[in-house]
Amino acid sequence: MIDLAINFEETNDKLICKINGDFDAYNSAEIKKQIKERMENSKAAKVVVDMSNVPYIDSAGLGAMVAILKDARHMGKEIVLLALRQNVKRIFEMTRLDKVFRIVDVLEEA
Amino acid sequence: MIDLAINFEETNDKLICKINGDFDAYNSAEIKKQIKERMENSKAAKVVVDMSNVPYIDSAGLGAMVAILKDARHMGKEIVLLALRQNVKRIFEMTRLDKVFRIVDVLEEA
Repeated sequence: MIDLAINFEETNDKLICKINGDFDAYNSAEIKKQIKERMENSKAAKVVVDMSNVPYIDSAGLGAMVAILKDARHMGKEIVLLALRQNVKRIFEMTRLDKVFRIVDVLEEA
Repeated sequence: MIDLAINFEETNDKLICKINGDFDAYNSAEIKKQIKERMENSKAAKVVVDMSNVPYIDSAGLGAMVAILKDARHMGKEIVLLALRQNVKRIFEMTRLDKVFRIVDVLEEA
């Protein structure tokens, strides 16, 4: 069992999911599952995935993020990615996922 | 309808699939479909995906490659990626897919 450390926080209109640690093949399925469950039980229309504590994302993590995006759309929710570190942002850019996701630097922009 | 230009070539023990052009969201589903069909109709145990004419791969292309790998394994075949260009190789490395795929520079190594 992986100690996942996703912190969830809910404000009036936003569900904030803060992932702590690498987002990779070892935990991507579990992260996807937890965020999906939480989205299902939340009334917030906006889901902010805080990546400020994610040092690295691999292809499995990218795949999970795309799956989370699809789940959110089915639920009529919007996904916003917050505070990507430089190298993680670069992976999103290199794979063109920066065109698919809304990415913001600070929570106020979300 | 996309003019795909995958060239297929079969030697005694290898099915060679040469992709011409970007491998991205616009054609990844079609490339996956064509390679899968061809694998199903081939007796070759080794499937070489020649990427020498692929200038770019995006996250959809990476996802399709992983799906092709899974299909191949179900059929008891091995996938080998051939002649990745520098920036495409870098995307595989950054997303750690270089640990998942066997990647070779020349056909003789495949």
